[in-house]
Amino acid sequence: MFEKLKRTKVFRDPLYGYIQVDYKIISDLIDSREVQRLRRIRQLSGVSMVFQTAEHTRFTHSLGAYQMANLVLQNVDGIEVLDEYKSIIFLCAALLHDVGHGPYSHAFESVMNLSHEEMTVKIILSPDTEINKILSQYENLATDIASVIAHDNRFPLLEALVSSQLDVDRMDYLSRDAYFTGAAYGHIDYYRILRSMKIVNNKLCVRASGVHSIESYLMSRYHMYFQVYYHPIARSYESLLENIYRRVNDLVAEGKKIDAPIEAFLKVINNNCDVESYIDLDDAYVNGFIKQFTKSSDDILRKLSLCLINRHLYRYIDLADDPDPEEIEAIKSKYSEDVLKYYYLESKVEGVAYSIYKKTNINDIKVLLPNGKIKSLEQYSPIVKSLSISSLKTVNRIYYLED
Amino acid sequence: MFEKLKRTKVFRDPLYGYIQVDYKIISDLIDSREVQRLRRIRQLSGVSMVFQTAEHTRFTHSLGAYQMANLVLQNVDGIEVLDEYKSIIFLCAALLHDVGHGPYSHAFESVMNLSHEEMTVKIILSPDTEINKILSQYENLATDIASVIAHDNRFPLLEALVSSQLDVDRMDYLSRDAYFTGAAYGHIDYYRILRSMKIVNNKLCVRASGVHSIESYLMSRYHMYFQVYYHPIARSYESLLENIYRRVNDLVAEGKKIDAPIEAFLKVINNNCDVESYIDLDDAYVNGFIKQFTKSSDDILRKLSLCLINRHLYRYIDLADDPDPEEIEAIKSKYSEDVLKYYYLESKVEGVAYSIYKKTNINDIKVLLPNGKIKSLEQYSPIVKSLSISSLKTVNRIYYLED
Amino acid sequence: MFEKLKRTKVFRDPLYGYIQVDYKIISDLIDSREVQRLRRIRQLSGVSMVFQTAEHTRFTHSLGAYQMANLVLQNVDGIEVLDEYKSIIFLCAALLHDVGHGPYSHAFESVMNLSHEEMTVKIILSPDTEINKILSQYENLATDIASVIAHDNRFPLLEALVSSQLDVDRMDYLSRDAYFTGAAYGHIDYYRILRSMKIVNNKLCVRASGVHSIESYLMSRYHMYFQVYYHPIARSYESLLENIYRRVNDLVAEGKKIDAPIEAFLKVINNNCDVESYIDLDDAYVNGFIKQFTKSSDDILRKLSLCLINRHLYRYIDLADDPDPEEIEAIKSKYSEDVLKYYYLESKVEGVAYSIYKKTNINDIKVLLPNGKIKSLEQYSPIVKSLSISSLKTVNRIYYLED
Amino acid sequence: MFEKLKRTKVFRDPLYGYIQVDYKIISDLIDSREVQRLRRIRQLSGVSMVFQTAEHTRFTHSLGAYQMANLVLQNVDGIEVLDEYKSIIFLCAALLHDVGHGPYSHAFESVMNLSHEEMTVKIILSPDTEINKILSQYENLATDIASVIAHDNRFPLLEALVSSQLDVDRMDYLSRDAYFTGAAYGHIDYYRILRSMKIVNNKLCVRASGVHSIESYLMSRYHMYFQVYYHPIARSYESLLENIYRRVNDLVAEGKKIDAPIEAFLKVINNNCDVESYIDLDDAYVNGFIKQFTKSSDDILRKLSLCLINRHLYRYIDLADDPDPEEIEAIKSKYSEDVLKYYYLESKVEGVAYSIYKKTNINDIKVLLPNGKIKSLEQYSPIVKSLSISSLKTVNRIYYLED
Repeated sequence: MFEKLKRTKVFRDPLYGYIQVDYKIISDLIDSREVQRLRRIRQLSGVSMVFQTAEHTRFTHSLGAYQMANLVLQNVDGIEVLDEYKSIIFLCAALLHDVGHGPYSHAFESVMNLSHEEMTVKIILSPDTEINKILSQYENLATDIASVIAHDNRFPLLEALVSSQLDVDRMDYLSRDAYFTGAAYGHIDYYRILRSMKIVNNKLCVRASGVHSIESYLMSRYHMYFQVYYHPIARSYESLLENIYRRVNDLVAEGKKIDAPIEAFLKVINNNCDVESYIDLDDAYVNGFIKQFTKSSDDILRKLSLCLINRHLYRYIDLADDPDPEEIEAIKSKYSEDVLKYYYLESKVEGVAYSIYKKTNINDIKVLLPNGKIKSLEQYSPIVKSLSISSLKTVNRIYYLED
Repeated sequence: MFEKLKRTKVFRDPLYGYIQVDYKIISDLIDSREVQRLRRIRQLSGVSMVFQTAEHTRFTHSLGAYQMANLVLQNVDGIEVLDEYKSIIFLCAALLHDVGHGPYSHAFESVMNLSHEEMTVKIILSPDTEINKILSQYENLATDIASVIAHDNRFPLLEALVSSQLDVDRMDYLSRDAYFTGAAYGHIDYYRILRSMKIVNNKLCVRASGVHSIESYLMSRYHMYFQVYYHPIARSYESLLENIYRRVNDLVAEGKKIDAPIEAFLKVINNNCDVESYIDLDDAYVNGFIKQFTKSSDDILRKLSLCLINRHLYRYIDLADDPDPEEIEAIKSKYSEDVLKYYYLESKVEGVAYSIYKKTNINDIKVLLPNGKIKSLEQYSPIVKSLSISSLKTVNRIYYLED
Repeated sequence: MFEKLKRTKVFRDPLYGYIQVDYKIISDLIDSREVQRLRRIRQLSGVSMVFQTAEHTRFTHSLGAYQMANLVLQNVDGIEVLDEYKSIIFLCAALLHDVGHGPYSHAFESVMNLSHEEMTVKIILSPDTEINKILSQYENLATDIASVIAHDNRFPLLEALVSSQLDVDRMDYLSRDAYFTGAAYGHIDYYRILRSMKIVNNKLCVRASGVHSIESYLMSRYHMYFQVYYHPIARSYESLLENIYRRVNDLVAEGKKIDAPIEAFLKVINNNCDVESYIDLDDAYVNGFIKQFTKSSDDILRKLSLCLINRHLYRYIDLADDPDPEEIEAIKSKYSEDVLKYYYLESKVEGVAYSIYKKTNINDIKVLLPNGKIKSLEQYSPIVKSLSISSLKTVNRIYYLED
Repeated sequence: MFEKLKRTKVFRDPLYGYIQVDYKIISDLIDSREVQRLRRIRQLSGVSMVFQTAEHTRFTHSLGAYQMANLVLQNVDGIEVLDEYKSIIFLCAALLHDVGHGPYSHAFESVMNLSHEEMTVKIILSPDTEINKILSQYENLATDIASVIAHDNRFPLLEALVSSQLDVDRMDYLSRDAYFTGAAYGHIDYYRILRSMKIVNNKLCVRASGVHSIESYLMSRYHMYFQVYYHPIARSYESLLENIYRRVNDLVAEGKKIDAPIEAFLKVINNNCDVESYIDLDDAYVNGFIKQFTKSSDDILRKLSLCLINRHLYRYIDLADDPDPEEIEAIKSKYSEDVLKYYYLESKVEGVAYSIYKKTNINDIKVLLPNGKIKSLEQYSPIVKSLSISSLKTVNRIYYLED
């Protein structure tokens, strides 16, 4: 039913050696404007301020998640419950799961009223996008893919494979981010994990004999979160960006004029962003208007933007190190009321290696015992159980601008 | 004489594990606006159109070349002929050797009247740059570094170490580009090479016993050139960019108005680019004006720009494959006279693994025999001799736009 | 005081690139008969029955532990408390720490009355060994090195560096065993660990900022233990070997003659093994006499030996999988009383990722807080605390011979 | 027709991740006594005297060559000309191609009248071997496999795949030896090579577009030969071994008695070695009798054996370094006539990166042009042509024993 390419297309990739594309529809989606746009959005935003080689983009990761889906189809025991149509949904969902991301996404979502998943769904369903045109050759395909991304429970197995505690998205990005940052953690034994997986009654399980590879994966994830993604300098950069957005927002609310071409961005803030404008947004767009803000007549906006451009980031104090409360008070008191919220902030990041507290039950990992019974991972593995409790780590930090 | 940092600064790097910074002056230079700008210029321009993970920037490579210089200072036999002052020149020159690069540099230099080396020298010497302010704390330092980069033969050993057939620049970029493209070639045994080097009478030699590591390095270089840097699709992308620049140039010459904010770029074309404007140029700047050109009223400029943005690159025919001359004629005849030069071009790339034809004698590699005599590499190694002849490969291609 | 080699000797090594030897005494020790003997004893005994590429020897690891000691001397903050003499003790102890190992060491120690550490001490102190002759050029050196290995608390810092929860021995072997098995775990970020270490008041600490690298190291260790070292097939092989030794022992006790040249081995069993005979023992020696046992007139000895040589190992049942007790009873009842203890055994392996229960306090890891205070690792890190409890895993298995 | 295993067997391997076994016959062959024996024969004999981590065995490589054959079946364009029966011949031949190797094979073949290929054929065809019993379940299978190994031209395509200029044997061993020595060369892009291959008219070709990967492979091979396999210290070790064999041979010819259990070895020398005795020979066997020779009453045999055991190898002079002829004469004159041939030898090793001088035409690599024509590799690639000439390197060395 789905047309194949005359000759398999291959993309060289440092993680998998080669990424293979057999289906014409996948090749067309990769060439679409909306997927190509991801070449202009870095995967890790502010992280490259600390790990300078982490300059890879969401495009690279999207191809990787697609390839991981391919590997699932080739290696997971029982995956033949997916017929060709469902396999195509799976491959497309893996490839497209991040098309809704904006530039410097975390900061972006803090002022946007949509999550990036909602935006992804919009882009897939909007009749004006190239993606939608490609998918619409096949009845229902666009809506079915959107369904998987929206987690509306119509395709629970596919949802689990595309986005859960152990999915093609995370398996690619942990390895990839480790490769490009040069971090020593994050190298996961994905082939072993794939071979441990088994589809039982349409549910994704992990064989008991492979639980150690999951334990190791969760530990890698824990380390990548606290050593890379939540690194204080990366967070400082992103907080600065968030405060620039907030200042713009506040100025607009006060009716002030902003001297920079930020129409598309304002639409985002004002929650009336059409897909077409959204697609225009990329890292260069954000960098561009911030460069202009460095000449703004608004003191706060100008100062924040200069700090960002010249990498004079917020300094920080980690509350876990028992800092002197008077010292903090002294810092805080230096700022007048009107600038305080821009120049001084209290930040909190929470994370766990493995969460058992999620509401939707597709999210936790099931272990298949040799006798055929199924247990939840945290019941089966004392290590995971203790990880899920002890790794519930909260990082509280004070960020502030030096003079 | 040169101030050290209180605690060594380290940058995680996938190639070296860690890059170490001990001197305050190096740390200051890294933080300068002109070096930070390199974060916004990709190392391999159009190559990421083929090797999609090759998204690393010149910043990353500049740190790497600096680290390679560090490794030279720690490992090369006889390097103690460099006193601290000369070591600092060396480290700074390695770090700064690429600051004069523009965005998508090859295409850029095709319309610019300066080479990127000349621009590097200008940036180092211009009193307005942060780099110059940092260097000017020490008498002569800026001019001495510029001297090494300009190859004016005042510091022949440093010139050989910074830019020659076997230098810290190439040793870093071959490895780095291999890592980020995922290419199987380019992995050079740099530690072995460094341990083979010896400074004899102020000249850089390679011990006979280490010649094999140089042979392997030259072969890697040959492969990286023909498989990566000269890849037809990468060249297609760059040729398209060159023709966009050429069209702008021609329109300006005809007195036509260009509807896009390209003042800085026009200064470059008109050869009156001040350092300040030059620094404003980065990948985003170029991408930005090309996006505007897609709405240009000039048909040719609009078409070329749309092709670039939407990745409809030139198709190509390799003349080595004995194509039918009539087929080529047929392609050529489709274009009217006025568009021909933009839509159809004959391209020629030449390269060798190792050149013995260079004029300046600092450029060829000297081999130190066990008996103390010195031979040139191509005299010593029959493999290198034949490489230097047989690898003189010319790639002739026809590039053309499909309708 | 200690003579240096005229030119640094280097050994190529896949883990470190190169292992460097500067001191003549180290070079001489490496060339000694007793260290060279380690080339004939595999590091992982029965593990290569499962991970077939794990064929590396204790020689390779001994060089690696020496190199790790070198890296400690070059990288650890405060290590200059060790003067040259103590550094030499450290390097020698690292190199020699395993010379007392016998072939297939686990099984061996089960019938020997000495631990391999005690045998190491004997070899270092025995006046007939080449090692002792080399060390005796320096007063006290042999006894001081033996002291460190015997853990008699005269050099507590050196003891901690050579053998503790986090020492040069383990840091080398975890990485090395991972490399040679191809296991995905065990890759530890040793450079990061070394840079986190600090000697405070003659005690080895880990800076709080580096605790995550220790967490990751402990997790790797946990995985290597349960996935590699305690792998059921590796244990099956070693159990079979132990029972061959036990049978020989029993036959000798009954006054039976053994038809094979096993004088040296009998001396070991009888606890009167001189160093000279001990050094004769290597993997080939054991394999040689077992090959002869395959023609023994004793049925049990012959059968066990044939099983070992032809790789018909014990089958096993994991008690954690809730096997049917009747099935086990049925297996057991197949064996007559006199063969039962050789053909059927209950095995128990215990291991933890990190033990806080050790008696000697040099063994637990100390964390240095930013404010200068010191905490124990399990107090500081909730993850480690829970690892130290939840990873206390006991593996109970039944091993039995099939007909 | 060929039975499959109920569940795929996997072997962890550092090069391929996993080696997969689906057919029962392959699993049985791996478990056979003759293949298991390869666990006791190191792949690189004396090379581990220089590259100490090169301790891997022929068993490991045999599994690897089998896996490479698997990859050929999965990836090479047009490979479906092989039906299941021929695929099985291919897989078996790859797995078994080295079973005829003796311990320290080079030295061995210098006194043996059979090549190891001839011995491999004998073992496959001899009715007493486990291999033969397994293969004999299928009519003609044993003789067909032997045919491929004997190169008798009945299955030219299979011969080319198993042993030629570019075959599964070399593709595995170059990578593997590089991995285990830690050498920087030898890493070949085998996946790229496999994807470049195409079967045209039952002949193995390489597409023109993939020639660069072959060029790189040939260069790696050249480096592995001269830097690893022909390393002077490795050759010194093997020459010493050869001279021990020669001395035994001479003593036996003179009717002298040898005080060591070397029956099997004598059978080899005397050219009447039955398969059963041959299989008894392994590294430990050779090491065992040499240890006994160290107590021999023959002065020469004792001295040579002591030198080997204690690693006092021949010293060497490279004639390429223009040594003083008088110096050589002086060395030579120290030895009396009767010991000269044992203590002093002139050695010559020749090698090329790629030979065009082979007689059998299956041996050279064919290039498939885009227009469908076929050229020989050295016609197509100037680099290869010059490699095949200039890399014809002869290494002449003098080896001699110091007092």
